[in-house]
Amino acid sequence: MLLCDIGNTSYHFLDDTKEYKKSVHSFNPGEIKERVFYICVNPHAKNILKQYENWIDLSRHVEPTHYYKTMGVDRIFACEAIGEGIIIDAGSAITVDLVKGGIFGGGFIYPGIKAMSETYRNISPALDYSFNFELDLDKMPKNSQDAISYGYLKTLFSEVMSHNMDIFLTGGDAKKFAQIFPHATIDEMLIFKGMKKIMKKADVC
Amino acid sequence: MLLCDIGNTSYHFLDDTKEYKKSVHSFNPGEIKERVFYICVNPHAKNILKQYENWIDLSRHVEPTHYYKTMGVDRIFACEAIGEGIIIDAGSAITVDLVKGGIFGGGFIYPGIKAMSETYRNISPALDYSFNFELDLDKMPKNSQDAISYGYLKTLFSEVMSHNMDIFLTGGDAKKFAQIFPHATIDEMLIFKGMKKIMKKADVC
Repeated sequence: MLLCDIGNTSYHFLDDTKEYKKSVHSFNPGEIKERVFYICVNPHAKNILKQYENWIDLSRHVEPTHYYKTMGVDRIFACEAIGEGIIIDAGSAITVDLVKGGIFGGGFIYPGIKAMSETYRNISPALDYSFNFELDLDKMPKNSQDAISYGYLKTLFSEVMSHNMDIFLTGGDAKKFAQIFPHATIDEMLIFKGMKKIMKKADVC
Repeated sequence: MLLCDIGNTSYHFLDDTKEYKKSVHSFNPGEIKERVFYICVNPHAKNILKQYENWIDLSRHVEPTHYYKTMGVDRIFACEAIGEGIIIDAGSAITVDLVKGGIFGGGFIYPGIKAMSETYRNISPALDYSFNFELDLDKMPKNSQDAISYGYLKTLFSEVMSHNMDIFLTGGDAKKFAQIFPHATIDEMLIFKGMKKIMKKADVC
């Protein structure tokens, strides 16, 4: 039995405790003969997977009224993993979701590092800097690199901290954002944890 | 005597109390025979203006040690206009600058509306919404349009409000951001005010 979290760029597998990724462009899901419990935000992959009986979509086992219709299923499963706190999933987009007493309390979407770098560069070549994740968040900047880094990171920080909750960091850039949120719990397995919880609840494993 | 604030898209003139704009692409500064006191962030226009003796660059009259080297001169002149507060200049970029006791206290740069809309759209077509400036900032969103609007606007709001200072709004999108910062003072003439102050100080008018 495998778990798989499918995004726009890769199939992210968990085989017991071993995790690995396969590119959505080259991987053929028909290769796998054992049962795979998956979630998928990628419409193209979702369509392909319909033909395989051993690929089981876990999203149908979530109570839809607890979330909203267009919410990414990866966000939903991260929320299912925790009882209380705020989840920052830092990937191509950064999603920030709040869970209170086991219930989803809303969330927002912020650009990921690459997207936001491009944004500043497109506004002006004078803003073409990489973000400084070591910047002093307590000081308004007096140089260009810190001025965009603060604009990107401190605004997010101020909003997240205003909720005064435990913070969980996941996603490909979790470690980078841990420099900004040093008290956060990094948990790259958060979505898989949510999947396991749902499987237990729905008694499908 | 005219005042002129030159950006990347237009020459913004103030003639006594009348203000008007000319496109940087079609306007010929040689047309004007009277004295023009200007500031300019546009390197190309700056180069052209060197040949005209009646165009007088005010940036040389600012004390450079009060600011940082790569800081846009428009930001500097907005800061010169106020004694105390936080200035949000909402244009193609949003600059946020802090002034305390007449001294620049640092600032940051955030993407403007158009740039940030494109960012979300480029991350995913599912995020191609216009921003909802009427969104409830006290509630974590439960729909996609508000999820990106909150990501863009509430993060900025939380950071700006954390400074607990009077807010001055200027720039082309000042009125839109006034919906988010209802207690802010809108002052579209802020940069011209700064220019007048510097002219008085330097005794050049």
